[in-house]
Amino acid sequence: MFDKVLIANRGEIALRVARACRELGVATVAVYSTEDRESQVVRYADEAVHIGPGAARASYRNIAAVVEAARQTGAQAIHPGYGFLSEDADFAEVCAQNDIVFIGPPAHVIAQLGDKCAARRVMSEVGLPVLPGSHGPVVSAEEATALMAEIGYPAIFKAAAGGGGRGMAVVTEPREVVTAYQGVTSESLAVFGDGRIYVERYVAAARHIEVQILCDGHGNGVHLGLRDCSVQRRHQKLLEESPAPGLSAQTADRMGQAAVAAALAVGYVGAGTFEFLVDEDERFYFMEANCRIQVEHPVTEMVTGVDLVEQQLRVAAGERLALRQADVVPRGAAIECRINVENPDRDFAPAPGVFDEFVVPGGPFVRVDTHGYPGYRMPAIYDSLIAKIVVWAPDRAAAIARMDRALAEFRATGRAIHTTAGFLRRVLAEHTFRDGTHTTTLVGHILHDLAGRPAGPAATRPEEGAPRWARKHPVPHS
Amino acid sequence: MFDKVLIANRGEIALRVARACRELGVATVAVYSTEDRESQVVRYADEAVHIGPGAARASYRNIAAVVEAARQTGAQAIHPGYGFLSEDADFAEVCAQNDIVFIGPPAHVIAQLGDKCAARRVMSEVGLPVLPGSHGPVVSAEEATALMAEIGYPAIFKAAAGGGGRGMAVVTEPREVVTAYQGVTSESLAVFGDGRIYVERYVAAARHIEVQILCDGHGNGVHLGLRDCSVQRRHQKLLEESPAPGLSAQTADRMGQAAVAAALAVGYVGAGTFEFLVDEDERFYFMEANCRIQVEHPVTEMVTGVDLVEQQLRVAAGERLALRQADVVPRGAAIECRINVENPDRDFAPAPGVFDEFVVPGGPFVRVDTHGYPGYRMPAIYDSLIAKIVVWAPDRAAAIARMDRALAEFRATGRAIHTTAGFLRRVLAEHTFRDGTHTTTLVGHILHDLAGRPAGPAATRPEEGAPRWARKHPVPHS
Repeated sequence: MFDKVLIANRGEIALRVARACRELGVATVAVYSTEDRESQVVRYADEAVHIGPGAARASYRNIAAVVEAARQTGAQAIHPGYGFLSEDADFAEVCAQNDIVFIGPPAHVIAQLGDKCAARRVMSEVGLPVLPGSHGPVVSAEEATALMAEIGYPAIFKAAAGGGGRGMAVVTEPREVVTAYQGVTSESLAVFGDGRIYVERYVAAARHIEVQILCDGHGNGVHLGLRDCSVQRRHQKLLEESPAPGLSAQTADRMGQAAVAAALAVGYVGAGTFEFLVDEDERFYFMEANCRIQVEHPVTEMVTGVDLVEQQLRVAAGERLALRQADVVPRGAAIECRINVENPDRDFAPAPGVFDEFVVPGGPFVRVDTHGYPGYRMPAIYDSLIAKIVVWAPDRAAAIARMDRALAEFRATGRAIHTTAGFLRRVLAEHTFRDGTHTTTLVGHILHDLAGRPAGPAATRPEEGAPRWARKHPVPHS
Repeated sequence: MFDKVLIANRGEIALRVARACRELGVATVAVYSTEDRESQVVRYADEAVHIGPGAARASYRNIAAVVEAARQTGAQAIHPGYGFLSEDADFAEVCAQNDIVFIGPPAHVIAQLGDKCAARRVMSEVGLPVLPGSHGPVVSAEEATALMAEIGYPAIFKAAAGGGGRGMAVVTEPREVVTAYQGVTSESLAVFGDGRIYVERYVAAARHIEVQILCDGHGNGVHLGLRDCSVQRRHQKLLEESPAPGLSAQTADRMGQAAVAAALAVGYVGAGTFEFLVDEDERFYFMEANCRIQVEHPVTEMVTGVDLVEQQLRVAAGERLALRQADVVPRGAAIECRINVENPDRDFAPAPGVFDEFVVPGGPFVRVDTHGYPGYRMPAIYDSLIAKIVVWAPDRAAAIARMDRALAEFRATGRAIHTTAGFLRRVLAEHTFRDGTHTTTLVGHILHDLAGRPAGPAATRPEEGAPRWARKHPVPHS
């Protein structure tokens, strides 16, 4: 095992990684931007290095600064968390050149899967079903128009370099093609520095289900079951659960096995996620692979008992997987709610500030991953996730009741502070969610319903007037 | 299920019960003393009734006040938690007379098992092994002297009405008999209102292992594995774990089956605990049965996935146990640490005050049950338990590492505030604890070692001078 690991991230995931290191007896180095000097992980880690000003490109995405911090502190490995440099093949390459272990797959695997368009092709070649769509990047509005005649409507235009729900547009009729092509291309260029896009058939009412995989560097791989992430707002996940409700064991097994086989076929090492669309007939289609730990990894941990970050560290240190597929025995049901500091009454606009009170839920089968604390000033320039509340129960209905109880216990107050906790309770109350028949359209339906009511049950500041959750607002900072 | 339940307790267990009720959709009534008006459960429950001044006999042990609160609020059942009225047969009887369901076994079972001396006889009759000792109460110093000639030294004198580690004395030679007889008799009279004592052979280096059982009112019972509670200071448990380390599966099964059979033989209903002494040859001897939820129940919940308080409520409402023995499949290892507001440097004297900071650990596989919060003024007149930190891991070594990490994260500060968190980390570091060969003598050995050192590693306030943990102090308030 490593002696010292640098954590190239912030917020709750930096703390999560630091905890795993501490339990393994591994010393930790936190890196932080000026905005994050009061962050919990700075106090938690054994060492902390200031790497730049607030803007991510100058700090958490600054490869030179991160690698220099690792060199100065003698860290043997870097855990990138999620976001920032976690799926940056160049960064993985620079780590390798500096004899620092990048805790994730090899650079060439990241590069291959990071190009979503190439990944579609590769995964199709190794046997995963993909939706009908383009066979490579679409390089002009004319090509897109011609392709659409072949694929049919609706379709979705996606950034080849995309991820995290950015750089996407659904096209429902021919007159939208040119606008969508231009919009996604320019957003992709702005967000990812790469304007290439690809096209896929769009399945409106589908379920977003992903497989957690884990591979070592010796050719062994297992899957750790499925997560249903269908509760999304504008392609941003709000709530995730495991197992996927209502899915047959046969389909779940087939998806798990297919994902492991595909991962091993491309030389994957580490923890990863294969995302699929699943239709009402349980047909599944590969969407993308994520070469990192996911925000929603705790639900998998709760049902399998496997510490995924510990496994990442072990595999990166060269250990063989101690887990065999038969050892992975899921138990019960787990749900995660992402608590964002956003105002649902203002179309989920970020609503950061200083926390006066910050009270997390406790008691049986409740887990909280948060970097919040009373007095914490939440920076406005990073993502709005402040806490992940995760619950487990023997069955899904009990897990829903437990999550509702836990959300009610969560209290974060402060001037201008709003959170999504109340809105998530509204999701839990939704009858299609409760019976597990919901699709990715659920949140849209709830918002549509609420928009039509002067003061819906989830309205938290009724004095601000109606309609709620109906105002347009740019996609939140991610 | 009940519509409304009254919680006749305080502190963390009151909150624990309120959480279980909320998850089942059951309304809750908290009762509170004047000292507890700022307590968390008062805010958490749907209703709260002030039942008297601080002294327990005037509030939490005041049967008339508690029953009147239930009548006024229309509560159909009362959950007594642990301590206070939880093992008071009169209270259970008064509840029955008032058509209120007492959440625990029938009054006659409590009476039978509450007399520890009678319980020894009954359990011996239904087949549980007991240590050699008196066959009934010992009514004079002369009888005790005569009996000791028969049993041999060392022996332990125990209050027949005892429990919670109070009213006990070890007798190692004849000249101690009269003093011990008089001391235990008068302490028992003072603490329990009953001066009867009994005698048992004393096993110095044994393990304290208990079986969690659960019985419904229809003749069905299961056990939920074992808990090792050998980490004790003056018969007060400090740390508990499940499963019992190093115990063979055969012995564990035999103990579990024996406890369930004995419980069913006496008509037990509800959750209960059978406590055993286990010697180095894995011979086990019944010590006592506890007719209530235990402080340490969370470790069983963590390894079995069963919510014991939920089960208590279901069984009390007349439901049949849905669990069969084959459904109880323990997984991994769990440890609980009791964080007491006590000063280890002052012989664990209670050290309450107002919390400035109160930060609980989080992250994977960590559970916290606490009624503490920043700004909370901890009353001095009740027990000193402020939090239970519980962790789970796939194996015991990983659970120890995780607990150490969690204890390090716990922070409770305030003028005059001290906690046992640091001392518990010292216990975790002890090599006999780490290899699971420790007995009930462990804490005594640690304290003896520390007393010989000017500034031991667990010393939290070195400026106060040596020796530490060596000063005599009365048994802490329980």
